[in-house]
Amino acid sequence: MYDLIIVGAGPAGLSAAVYGRRAGLDLIVIEQTPMGGGQVVDTYEVDNYPGMPGINGFDLAQKFRSHADGLGVVFKGGRVAAVRDEGDVKVVETADGTVYEARTLILAGGAEHAKLGVPGEDVYRGQGVSYCATCDGAFFKKRDVAVVGGGDVAVEDAVYLARFCRKVYLIHRRDSLRAAKSLQEKLFSCENVEVVWNSTLQKISGTGLVEGICIRSSDGDTERELAVEGVFIAVGMRPNTEIYRAVAACDESGYLIAGEDCATSVSGIFAAGDIRTKALRQIVTAVSDGACAVASVEKYLISQTQ
Amino acid sequence: MYDLIIVGAGPAGLSAAVYGRRAGLDLIVIEQTPMGGGQVVDTYEVDNYPGMPGINGFDLAQKFRSHADGLGVVFKGGRVAAVRDEGDVKVVETADGTVYEARTLILAGGAEHAKLGVPGEDVYRGQGVSYCATCDGAFFKKRDVAVVGGGDVAVEDAVYLARFCRKVYLIHRRDSLRAAKSLQEKLFSCENVEVVWNSTLQKISGTGLVEGICIRSSDGDTERELAVEGVFIAVGMRPNTEIYRAVAACDESGYLIAGEDCATSVSGIFAAGDIRTKALRQIVTAVSDGACAVASVEKYLISQTQ
Repeated sequence: MYDLIIVGAGPAGLSAAVYGRRAGLDLIVIEQTPMGGGQVVDTYEVDNYPGMPGINGFDLAQKFRSHADGLGVVFKGGRVAAVRDEGDVKVVETADGTVYEARTLILAGGAEHAKLGVPGEDVYRGQGVSYCATCDGAFFKKRDVAVVGGGDVAVEDAVYLARFCRKVYLIHRRDSLRAAKSLQEKLFSCENVEVVWNSTLQKISGTGLVEGICIRSSDGDTERELAVEGVFIAVGMRPNTEIYRAVAACDESGYLIAGEDCATSVSGIFAAGDIRTKALRQIVTAVSDGACAVASVEKYLISQTQ
Repeated sequence: MYDLIIVGAGPAGLSAAVYGRRAGLDLIVIEQTPMGGGQVVDTYEVDNYPGMPGINGFDLAQKFRSHADGLGVVFKGGRVAAVRDEGDVKVVETADGTVYEARTLILAGGAEHAKLGVPGEDVYRGQGVSYCATCDGAFFKKRDVAVVGGGDVAVEDAVYLARFCRKVYLIHRRDSLRAAKSLQEKLFSCENVEVVWNSTLQKISGTGLVEGICIRSSDGDTERELAVEGVFIAVGMRPNTEIYRAVAACDESGYLIAGEDCATSVSGIFAAGDIRTKALRQIVTAVSDGACAVASVEKYLISQTQ
């Protein structure tokens, strides 16, 4: 029976492990893939983790991991198949049937960016294809880029990129945007943004780095080539919460409902990082969550020992 | 007229500068002391900034600063004497009479730990004297330590330290604690905690590192020497908000009232880091605030351009 089980070994989970071990908690981290790391691992260059400008995502993940290793954090491999709240005891079962018990849980399994599934998308990920304008936009100063999507995030990304990119294409499959009106007004006021309506991305091409995209009109009649060096795909995120939805309250998009204190609807179960409801999903906010979740775990453990 | 003025160059302010510059905002940072850095600068060893285990506080502050410098952030020296909200324009005036104007402000001036003012306190700061058990407690595993104070933080610190220190003295000047009842019950259940009632710390002594303290009973009759290697002083914090209290809403302790989005009671003015109301004041939560505050600035600027 552990004090704490942390599910997930991305920035949120590893930060929680660092804070938890330093707080003297008896804890384990369950990670789905060897060496964990989360989405960061696939990031070519991270330039917004303060103190480590321009670090490779894999290297940053390794540094987080080494930090936790150095504090003696115990990692268990396995895909979590079920979580049960039995009051004072929280039960975690992995796909191979192993059962772990703890007084508290921190769920830090992250989220995944929805993919388009078009040729070139995987090949050029980190070589011009990005799922996060806030993270990667600054690498495309004075370049031409495309954003794919029509919701708030896509329009925010286009507005964000328009401040320093030369030209921004916003490619949307319909003839109107879902994004908030105020965002749309801002978008339409950007002189270097061209909205390409009723169009879908067909292919991303290049030689080593992205050089262009092919888009097709929704009626299938016309194809068009656009020379861009960056493609920002903003067609939604999928939190890794399928197995938690019966346990703790999630919002309509599937995120575990939790505020800055990371407390979910279940006493003793906390959610940290991209998996929870929050405005800004970044490495720094995930790392912060890891610390805040452990602080909440400590408060909960104190309240339980009365 | 800038897009953004950031007041303060600690982890929150420098993170905001990194995020703000990467977002293409026209911004300056006003710092009170050359090279800024905030409280981190005075921290001997930081072991809970994920990815940089055991880094010296000064070095970490320098890394944050270099990151901002590398992005071309402009720093202005000066002590901010007044801030005025003139609607669409926010005005910042420094003590030397220089006036800066911006569309938004991020206030990131931090907070200071209240000091006891006893001999040895300054000399041994970072050499056994600490103001943050969460930050520094892990350096004192299996050692004897003292905590000074009687509020929630002091009792939380004592409980935290009791998990891995050999013996924890809690030194309090009165015969009862102000801390929450649940915390007190937890405290009294810790076998390795001794509460030293009606006593004040007189002196911290050692040779290079802390070796002991002298405490005196509140009636002044008796003095006692305690051999401890760590002294955790938890007698309150003072947010650097004096000049903001007439501008934006503060809580009874003087912190700027702001949630995870860093929005204060004044539209266009944001608060990031230790200066705002929050549960956990750490480098990671300050750095996260810097990013969140910039995201809120961007949303605000979009809403203003309609």
